[in-house]
Amino acid sequence: MADLPSGPAGDAHAGAFRPCGIVTLTTDFGTSDAYAGALKGSILRVAPELRVHDISHSIAPQDVGHGARVLRGACPWFPPGTVHLAVVDPGVGTERAPIALVVSGHAFVGPDNGVFAEVVRALGGRAAARRIDERGALERFLPDRRSRTFHGRDLFAPAAAALASARLGFEEIGPEHGLATPREGRPARLLSAETPVARVTHCDAFGNAVTDATEADLRALGRPVRSVRLPDGRRVPLLGTYGDAPAGSPLALLGSEGFLEIAVSGGSARQQLGLQPGSELRLETEP
Amino acid sequence: MADLPSGPAGDAHAGAFRPCGIVTLTTDFGTSDAYAGALKGSILRVAPELRVHDISHSIAPQDVGHGARVLRGACPWFPPGTVHLAVVDPGVGTERAPIALVVSGHAFVGPDNGVFAEVVRALGGRAAARRIDERGALERFLPDRRSRTFHGRDLFAPAAAALASARLGFEEIGPEHGLATPREGRPARLLSAETPVARVTHCDAFGNAVTDATEADLRALGRPVRSVRLPDGRRVPLLGTYGDAPAGSPLALLGSEGFLEIAVSGGSARQQLGLQPGSELRLETEP
Amino acid sequence: MADLPSGPAGDAHAGAFRPCGIVTLTTDFGTSDAYAGALKGSILRVAPELRVHDISHSIAPQDVGHGARVLRGACPWFPPGTVHLAVVDPGVGTERAPIALVVSGHAFVGPDNGVFAEVVRALGGRAAARRIDERGALERFLPDRRSRTFHGRDLFAPAAAALASARLGFEEIGPEHGLATPREGRPARLLSAETPVARVTHCDAFGNAVTDATEADLRALGRPVRSVRLPDGRRVPLLGTYGDAPAGSPLALLGSEGFLEIAVSGGSARQQLGLQPGSELRLETEP
Repeated sequence: MADLPSGPAGDAHAGAFRPCGIVTLTTDFGTSDAYAGALKGSILRVAPELRVHDISHSIAPQDVGHGARVLRGACPWFPPGTVHLAVVDPGVGTERAPIALVVSGHAFVGPDNGVFAEVVRALGGRAAARRIDERGALERFLPDRRSRTFHGRDLFAPAAAALASARLGFEEIGPEHGLATPREGRPARLLSAETPVARVTHCDAFGNAVTDATEADLRALGRPVRSVRLPDGRRVPLLGTYGDAPAGSPLALLGSEGFLEIAVSGGSARQQLGLQPGSELRLETEP
Repeated sequence: MADLPSGPAGDAHAGAFRPCGIVTLTTDFGTSDAYAGALKGSILRVAPELRVHDISHSIAPQDVGHGARVLRGACPWFPPGTVHLAVVDPGVGTERAPIALVVSGHAFVGPDNGVFAEVVRALGGRAAARRIDERGALERFLPDRRSRTFHGRDLFAPAAAALASARLGFEEIGPEHGLATPREGRPARLLSAETPVARVTHCDAFGNAVTDATEADLRALGRPVRSVRLPDGRRVPLLGTYGDAPAGSPLALLGSEGFLEIAVSGGSARQQLGLQPGSELRLETEP
Repeated sequence: MADLPSGPAGDAHAGAFRPCGIVTLTTDFGTSDAYAGALKGSILRVAPELRVHDISHSIAPQDVGHGARVLRGACPWFPPGTVHLAVVDPGVGTERAPIALVVSGHAFVGPDNGVFAEVVRALGGRAAARRIDERGALERFLPDRRSRTFHGRDLFAPAAAALASARLGFEEIGPEHGLATPREGRPARLLSAETPVARVTHCDAFGNAVTDATEADLRALGRPVRSVRLPDGRRVPLLGTYGDAPAGSPLALLGSEGFLEIAVSGGSARQQLGLQPGSELRLETEP
């Protein structure tokens, strides 16, 4: 992540974790059912003193790639010592492993289905992983009856709470674990000097169309990018911020998470330019 | 509730309440108006040190049954000593009583309109109830001017805060109160050995169609249930978790809140099977 | 604000601020992207011990007037010593000033674009303002690289955290600042004794149509208002609370934020009466 604060980034060697009493939540539960509340209750039943902060309960149902993107954009800004609980878990109750990770002083708890792949990379990539063992030291924090369909409430939440409150150390969570190859859900990038093409990965709630091209990718093209060609042939200038374009006009810019995006000043690129995930955009460099 | 943790369940005799400094919120306010924020402010003005946790602000407007169901699924997972504030209050300002309850070490604050009926039953059923007296010991925590349309902010929130922070004991909230007969809003269950029929009560945000049949109900049929017949005649198998069915296939299972539900593996039973509240499903036992 | 609690209102002279460790959040970020989570992380990275409370992340995108209304309705209920962070910031990265305000013991942090105009008035109107100086004492709390499109995360959140945790005093935030003339986004009120007309400003999530007429405005008409004439000619009575009208019937009442509103008992005035922002309603007084 290009623009992370350079403050204390936690103990650099993977596996070191000193909890600061904060747990974050990222789920696809929505808030019209009891699930998000039950998750919080299960954390606080283990450790009522914890500070629990919602990142999102609005991940699209079972959309691991969406969850991975939100974790990548939010988690690195929290202080080291935070436990990030993520439950986007289409394979609940099947063979996918329940895991805990430590990366750059942050801990992550959830299913081993690729949801942590992007944030691990953003934080530097050296993760220590443990498989959560529900019959080990954690067992005394778990409910006696555990649902096969809600590991978030019955396994991940107690594990996150035990870690965040130092009731358990990271090594007590379970045995070492080799991470599954993350299923990314995103096509490989096209972008290279030969094919200077960025692809829209998603549109955010403001309607900005965010691509897979980073600032480093643009630099690697060797010549400064000046504009972007939309699928409809229109050319939009690369500017510094939304307000640098006249109201209602399209522009390209490097967004706050470090990716090239297309926006409409005071408007919505998704609605006004018809951009959507998969749209391809040609980067135009100085001659 | 079939699968509650068996940990410390608080002092068993109704009426005993030792606050742990946590308040939960369940309302139909949404978050696009100021109401949810004003509610939080009113709690923190009385006791800034409290830990306030959202369960939901997405209860359907004035839908007491929806609120009751979410409280039932979420509150029991919190530690005893929690105060649960619920404001789904279509009768605000009329004769329905403002109440506080204590059940199995949990406290509840809100209108006496049935919103607490299901969670009281899930927690064991023995509730001590008090009518909130705005002219008693609570008065010094209330705003001087109180709206007739927002008791959540002007009466319930200060009462919850005073209880949760031990500024008032439960007995100081007001006189003993006989609970109104809860208006359940749900039809009686059909289910019996003679009519092995479960009814859909709601669809959750994943599109799972949840019924009124519990695991105990199924056991009481005397013979193991193996499958469920949908209204369109299709038969779906009773399995253990979503991933036990092939992707895209329907199944029945016992959900995480203890009720029989119909799901589509990796999909939405609501969208793909056309199930909705009131749909009737015949349970098929082994011959 | 007519019905504010009369409790301790903080130090009356503008500029005095004693933090109580609470930060509130009001944004137009939604919760399906990482932005709200990143904002919380940026606060907690400076001061992990703070209590952070969401007011709303559901402000309509870039709708400063909507944000102003929600801040007005929610913030005054929090205890003095709260820091209210508001990020509805269509002009991010351009010349609009980043500011901190102190009013009646509350602090506000965000862009100087009018979003604080209404809450300042509700709290008494005497605001001390400072321009946030990213090269002054605050600098050590800021990330090294700061996005030009996300001042919420990179500037406002650290400033709010430093203020709320007393790591910086209000005077250390930056130099004194004259507030920009707020762009209100709302037309001037018509209401007077000669034209007793109230205008709908918005509909809330319950479908109540809230107008710009306050209780004081009604009193100033000299004769008691008894009913309101809708645009379609129908007359609705002014009553005390929703349940004073038969279920399904329309009524007028003074809402919980002190404004005249039109409601349907147990229903939605927006849907059933077709009211919308801008609709004009004639107030009818006793003869």
